[in-house]
Amino acid sequence: MKNISVLGAGMVGSAIAKDLSADFKVSVIDINEENLNALSRINSVKVIKADINNIETLENHCKESDLIISAVPGFMGFNTLKNIIKLKKDVVDISFFGEDPFELDALAKQNGVTAVVDCGVAPGMSNIILGYHNAEIEVASFECYVGGLPVSRNLPFQYKAPFSPIDVIEEYTRPARIVVNGKIVSKPALSELEQKDFEPIGTLEAFNTDGLRTLLKTMNIPNLKEKTLRYPGHIDYMKALRDTGFFSYDKIEVDNTLLAPIDLTVKLLFPKWKLEAREPEFTIMKIIITGTKNNKNIKYTYDLYDVFDETTLVSSMARTTGYTCTAAARLVLAGKFNRKGIAPPEYIGATSGCFNEILSQLEERGIKYKVKKNIYN
Amino acid sequence: MKNISVLGAGMVGSAIAKDLSADFKVSVIDINEENLNALSRINSVKVIKADINNIETLENHCKESDLIISAVPGFMGFNTLKNIIKLKKDVVDISFFGEDPFELDALAKQNGVTAVVDCGVAPGMSNIILGYHNAEIEVASFECYVGGLPVSRNLPFQYKAPFSPIDVIEEYTRPARIVVNGKIVSKPALSELEQKDFEPIGTLEAFNTDGLRTLLKTMNIPNLKEKTLRYPGHIDYMKALRDTGFFSYDKIEVDNTLLAPIDLTVKLLFPKWKLEAREPEFTIMKIIITGTKNNKNIKYTYDLYDVFDETTLVSSMARTTGYTCTAAARLVLAGKFNRKGIAPPEYIGATSGCFNEILSQLEERGIKYKVKKNIYN
Repeated sequence: MKNISVLGAGMVGSAIAKDLSADFKVSVIDINEENLNALSRINSVKVIKADINNIETLENHCKESDLIISAVPGFMGFNTLKNIIKLKKDVVDISFFGEDPFELDALAKQNGVTAVVDCGVAPGMSNIILGYHNAEIEVASFECYVGGLPVSRNLPFQYKAPFSPIDVIEEYTRPARIVVNGKIVSKPALSELEQKDFEPIGTLEAFNTDGLRTLLKTMNIPNLKEKTLRYPGHIDYMKALRDTGFFSYDKIEVDNTLLAPIDLTVKLLFPKWKLEAREPEFTIMKIIITGTKNNKNIKYTYDLYDVFDETTLVSSMARTTGYTCTAAARLVLAGKFNRKGIAPPEYIGATSGCFNEILSQLEERGIKYKVKKNIYN
Repeated sequence: MKNISVLGAGMVGSAIAKDLSADFKVSVIDINEENLNALSRINSVKVIKADINNIETLENHCKESDLIISAVPGFMGFNTLKNIIKLKKDVVDISFFGEDPFELDALAKQNGVTAVVDCGVAPGMSNIILGYHNAEIEVASFECYVGGLPVSRNLPFQYKAPFSPIDVIEEYTRPARIVVNGKIVSKPALSELEQKDFEPIGTLEAFNTDGLRTLLKTMNIPNLKEKTLRYPGHIDYMKALRDTGFFSYDKIEVDNTLLAPIDLTVKLLFPKWKLEAREPEFTIMKIIITGTKNNKNIKYTYDLYDVFDETTLVSSMARTTGYTCTAAARLVLAGKFNRKGIAPPEYIGATSGCFNEILSQLEERGIKYKVKKNIYN
C-alpha cells in the first residue's frame, strides 16, 4: 500500500485525506489541532501536529511518502511546494498560491519530480477540460463561469465563503487577466458584470476574475476568459465597499492609530460570510469551448452543478476541489501521468486516457459534468 | 438698529448672518477662522473668533445682543442654550441637540427668556405648519416626508450630506419614535422603507427617522410620523453597512488596537459624501395633515421643492433651514412672538399672524410652500 502525506487539514485537505484513505496509507499534517481532531476519528488516517514550514520537519514526516498533497493556505503554498520538490517527492498542489509556479519548473525537472499545481475545480477541472479538447481540436475560445454559493440567499450579501474569505476579497480587488484576440488584457476587478441564467439556480451575475493563471502561459488560444458567479446584487455591495476604501491595505489614521481598512473589514464581514455547520452550498460551473476540426465548427458546453453532501457532510466546494485533486493523485501514483516538472492540470487533460479516468472517478463520487457537443458549418 | 449675535459660522449660520445683516447689526462668533473668513468680506457683519463654550466669553461678546441665534454643532447645543438662557437673552436655536429642551423650560421662564428651539426646515417649518393647523382644526394625522439630496445621482450612494454627515449616520441608527393611535411607538432605524413619487424628482425611498422631537410632547394627535427621503438604493447600502457593524461605536480589536468601526467608516465614507463647491442640491418636503372641522374631513398637503441658489451660492439646506430661523428671529425681535420659556416652532405656528408672516418671508426669499386643501364628508 502506497503512502500519501496530506499537508493541511482544512475543509478540502480533510475531504482529500478521507477519500484517499480508502486505498492508501494516509497521514495528515497540520499545525492546527482543531483541524486534526475531526480527522483523528478515522482509523485509517494518521494525524500529525507539526509546522511544515520547516523543511526538516517536513522531510522527517514525509520520508516514506510516495506522493504529497499540498492543501496549505495560499500564502505558504509556493514555499511549501519548493520544499516538497527539494525533497524529490511527487506532489499535487491545491494551495492556489499567487506566485508563478513555473519558477520551480527547472528544479522539479532536475529533481525528477511530477508537480501538479492548481488541481482543484477552477482552476483545476476547468484546465483539464480545456487541455483535453485543445489536444483534439483547434480551440478558438474558452469561457469559464464558476461560483461556489450558499443555498440560502440572505440579504444583503447573499453570500457565504466556501473557501478562505480573504481570497474572495482578493478576487474582488485584483485586476483580471484575460486573453482577447491573442493578447493578454488586464480588466479591472468586478468588471464586465453580466446577468446570465444557470440551471437550476436561475439568474446569476458574472464578472471578470483573475482565474486563468497557468492557462495564460500554457495555451495558445485567441480568447480565454474566466468569470466568477454570484447572486444578483452581491457585487453592488462589494463595489461600494471597495470603492469607498474598505478593502484597502493602505494604512490611514483612525483615532490616532494607523490602520489598514481591510483589517477592520475582515473582522466585521467574515463572520457574516461563514457557512453554518452543515449549511447547504453548491458549486456551479459552465465551460464553453469553441473551435474547429476538419473544417467543422465545434462547440462544447460543460455544466457542473454539485451540492453539499448531506450523508458525508462534505461541502460541495471540498468535493469538487478535493476529488479532482485525488483523481489526479491516483493517476500520478499509478504512473498514468508522469510528466516531470511543473504540471498544471491542462497537461493532465492532454495526456491520453487521463481525462476519462478523472471524469469517471468524479462520477463515482457523484460529481457529474454534463457535456453537450454542437457541430455546425 | 437691534443687535443679533449668531453663534456658529457654518453653512447655515453664515446664511442666517447674511440674511439678518440687511436689517440688523450682526456679529458672528465661531472658533473656526476658516468659517469666519468667508463672512468677513460682508461689511455689515462683524466676525469674532472665540470659544463660546466658556460662558464668560459668551457673555462678553453678547452683552449688547437683543437676540442670539445658536447655530452651533448639535453636541454643544444644549449647553450653549443653557448658557444663553442664563444670560437672559432671547434665542432661536437650530443646533438640533439630542437632549430634551424642556429641561430648560423652567429656567427660561424664570429668566423671562423666549427660547425658540429646533427652528429649521424639519424640524422647524414642519412644526410651524402643524402648529398652525392644530390651532384651527382637530388634527387626526400628521405625516412629514423630507430629504436633502444632491442633484447629481452618483452610484453607489447617490448621496451627499447637506449637513453634518455624522448626524446622517445618527438618523440611520437611532430608533425612530412615531405616534400610532395615540401611543408613542419605537421603530427600528431605516424601517418601513417605501417608494413614493415626488414631483419633480420621481420615485424616492422613505424610511422612519426620529425627527418628531418636541411634537411627541407638545401635540395630542393620534398619528404622527416622519420619514426621511433618499434616492432608491441608498438605504440598501446603509443597511448593509449598519448590519455588518460599520456604524458601531462598540470598540473591537483590530491589528492589536481597540477601535470603534464608526471611526474608520467616517474617515472613508464622509469624503465621498461631501458636496462639491457649488454643487447643486435640493430640499424636498411633503407634509400631509388630516383632520376634522365642523364635521367636515379636511386634508392639507404642503409641498416644498427648493434648489441651490446659483446667484447667492447658498445651499438649499441652508436656505430652507436658515430662513425659517431668521423669520422666527424677526418675529421675536418685533415682539410678535413673545411666549416665555422653551418654545418649539409649533408654538409659533399656533400664534396669531405668525404663520402667514413666516410664509411670506420665505416666499420673498424664493422658498415656496405649495398648499392644497381638500374638504370631503
